[in-house]
Amino acid sequence: MRAIDVIRKKRDGGELSPDEIEFFISSYTADRIPDYQVSAWLMAVLLRGMTGAEITALTETMLHSGSVLDLSDLPGRKVDKHSTGGVGDKTSLVLAPLIAAAGVPVPMISGRGLGHTGGTLDKLESIPGFNVNLSLAEFRRVLATCGCALIGQTAEIAPADKKLYALRDVTATVESQPLICGSIMSKKLAEGIDALVLDVKTGSGAFMKSEEAAIALAELMVETGMRMGKKMVALITDMDQPLGNNVGNALEVEECVEVMRGEGPADLRELCLELAAWMLFLAGRVTCLDEGRRLAAELIASGAALRKFRAIIAQQGGDASVIDDTARLPQARRGLPVLSRNDGFVASIQCEQVGIASLVLGGGREKKEDTIDPAVGVIVHKKVGDAVHSGEPLATIHYNSDVRLNEARRLLEESYSIAPQPPITRRPLIHRVVQGTRHVETGK
Amino acid sequence: MRAIDVIRKKRDGGELSPDEIEFFISSYTADRIPDYQVSAWLMAVLLRGMTGAEITALTETMLHSGSVLDLSDLPGRKVDKHSTGGVGDKTSLVLAPLIAAAGVPVPMISGRGLGHTGGTLDKLESIPGFNVNLSLAEFRRVLATCGCALIGQTAEIAPADKKLYALRDVTATVESQPLICGSIMSKKLAEGIDALVLDVKTGSGAFMKSEEAAIALAELMVETGMRMGKKMVALITDMDQPLGNNVGNALEVEECVEVMRGEGPADLRELCLELAAWMLFLAGRVTCLDEGRRLAAELIASGAALRKFRAIIAQQGGDASVIDDTARLPQARRGLPVLSRNDGFVASIQCEQVGIASLVLGGGREKKEDTIDPAVGVIVHKKVGDAVHSGEPLATIHYNSDVRLNEARRLLEESYSIAPQPPITRRPLIHRVVQGTRHVETGK
Repeated sequence: MRAIDVIRKKRDGGELSPDEIEFFISSYTADRIPDYQVSAWLMAVLLRGMTGAEITALTETMLHSGSVLDLSDLPGRKVDKHSTGGVGDKTSLVLAPLIAAAGVPVPMISGRGLGHTGGTLDKLESIPGFNVNLSLAEFRRVLATCGCALIGQTAEIAPADKKLYALRDVTATVESQPLICGSIMSKKLAEGIDALVLDVKTGSGAFMKSEEAAIALAELMVETGMRMGKKMVALITDMDQPLGNNVGNALEVEECVEVMRGEGPADLRELCLELAAWMLFLAGRVTCLDEGRRLAAELIASGAALRKFRAIIAQQGGDASVIDDTARLPQARRGLPVLSRNDGFVASIQCEQVGIASLVLGGGREKKEDTIDPAVGVIVHKKVGDAVHSGEPLATIHYNSDVRLNEARRLLEESYSIAPQPPITRRPLIHRVVQGTRHVETGK
Repeated sequence: MRAIDVIRKKRDGGELSPDEIEFFISSYTADRIPDYQVSAWLMAVLLRGMTGAEITALTETMLHSGSVLDLSDLPGRKVDKHSTGGVGDKTSLVLAPLIAAAGVPVPMISGRGLGHTGGTLDKLESIPGFNVNLSLAEFRRVLATCGCALIGQTAEIAPADKKLYALRDVTATVESQPLICGSIMSKKLAEGIDALVLDVKTGSGAFMKSEEAAIALAELMVETGMRMGKKMVALITDMDQPLGNNVGNALEVEECVEVMRGEGPADLRELCLELAAWMLFLAGRVTCLDEGRRLAAELIASGAALRKFRAIIAQQGGDASVIDDTARLPQARRGLPVLSRNDGFVASIQCEQVGIASLVLGGGREKKEDTIDPAVGVIVHKKVGDAVHSGEPLATIHYNSDVRLNEARRLLEESYSIAPQPPITRRPLIHRVVQGTRHVETGK
């Protein structure tokens, strides 16, 4: 088999066989095909697309390019949740302990912030001492002890994805849905899970701005997971404004603790319960979604979720006392309110700009080498539909350096659009549920 | 400007500005953009296409990546002919001396055989002593002396094309018409010509099998040349069977000498006269095509063309006596007739297979490093429409080694299709003339 024939076939819109995909990806991972041939192929994939069978073969090959955890010694179905990324999107920190508290193992391998979006690992690292860099052996130990562990990708997991992603990043081929699907699914399935709940974001703060694109990606991932024998669901959820109120690493941990205390903002709490219900349902822990929602709410009300979070933090070397006193989390030295210039109602929030505001304060990375300031970020006081008076704070900037303070303020000011009347229609929090290729409209 | 933004713009179907194309190609030629980014861009170009303005900018940039001859000291318009390649396609060897004999300078920089097609340089080198590797300075001297010179591409000519072509060859991006156009036109325009006649082949022995593809490429090249101030025409000509009877390097030189003696096969003679008429017309040497055809025929009848060929051979170090005695050209030691198994008429000849038959005998290269046997090849005795009897020779194989003789014989046997009746319609030798975007149907 020759690399150029595989490139040519995809170029001409043909369907590659599993053997061809396996040959191409494995040879690349083993440095037997050069970057310049793979980048031509990646562009052909982006422009020609892939069938479900091709995406499954791609995911299989990427998955088996590295270690795949065998968690069959742990009783019951293992479940995880993956989000395509957003602003203030912090549900993993609630869901992992919550589902583990229900007795369902959650082997969660997460990522770092990407562009304007935050990352679970960066958030966890704002807890003093928390170590996300466990080996797979340590990961198994924490998982067996706590029913849950939270780590970053190791070199053993899907090395093909690491190599392909680096090449996609410099060849304008990141945006291909089949390649996104292969990348996400190969890493998630390496966790040894039986079921996966996908949170596919749509709106101004998501990578998929349009609902159509989000649905298409969700379908690809659900179909791919099902072909590989996994229980799958994808919720298309709103990211047209930040989720909850807090954006920034320590600020988001604090808000998660609030939710686990039975407090916190309504949208964040609702999404956590909905995702939890699906995780419990797919794991077979409950027999219907309503039971899942009730169980999740009970585990929060009883303090079981928070106790589990405390145990995980302690197991992974962190200072669990932050749960009792969130003031022990890193705190920014200064705050600056961003004031409304008008009376009226919040018509919209350009959500990506809120994420960038947090990034320029030091809450995210512009370059890989950048270090994160865990304390900084933005607290949003007004959300879409809220009444606002001239001079009233829309948001507060939490900062340690004023180098890019004005840029952050300008981004936030410009992100808010104030109208004289409240918006007539509201975007639902959950747009749609994708199971197989059947869509359940929820309009919730 | 960033390479990735140029890739992304083309990926999304945008039109690149001349500045963007200049930046991208110049940076690549100077090793400031890596292969893997350029190959992704090449694939995007292949799948998204390019506008006329983009192709012109590409051609300009590739042209000016190296030396461009300034022949303004030579009086009159300089003209050249370029063929997209075929089997037995040997008109350059007739046209260069013929047009020079009319007093029109022909600075001809040619290529070698590619795949199943022959190359002018390989044919010239079958003349003992003929040196195609002149420097540009020597090229100018021979051109000034003879009115014509025949050399290969030097390192000074379009280095961007050399680098891009090597990358296209391994990334399945050779077939892009905009890239083919840029490659051909940048090399041809580096000759310092004022006018160019393109011979775009179509049929089973051409790279463009379909007439539509041939016309589209012809239009791109004619339009690009015109935008760059050149007089241009493209003839779409038939390559559904070999041109003339001889295929193979020395065999083709011999046939060209026959044409210049006023003999030789009718199709080869006719195409030479037609291309010559256009070259003379675009050069302003004649005022209409009929005058051009008459002048070309006179220069053959008077022996002027053959005398000019003799002068060129002598100037470029070759043994000019081969013109008087073609038996002095390399001769294969053995001949094997390929016999017809049926009575009937030749319905079609799979022309590419005839080219490959010559190649496997040693007349062409399968790998760059292969050396050519100038003596070997195929003489075709029966062409489409000819009556044939069972046991009569269709072709004769001229060979020196029988290592791949059976393969060549099988290719030739399979290439002929014999039918009980003569074909009802015949493909014209000249399918169409493309001037600007106006097509003149000839049906000739």
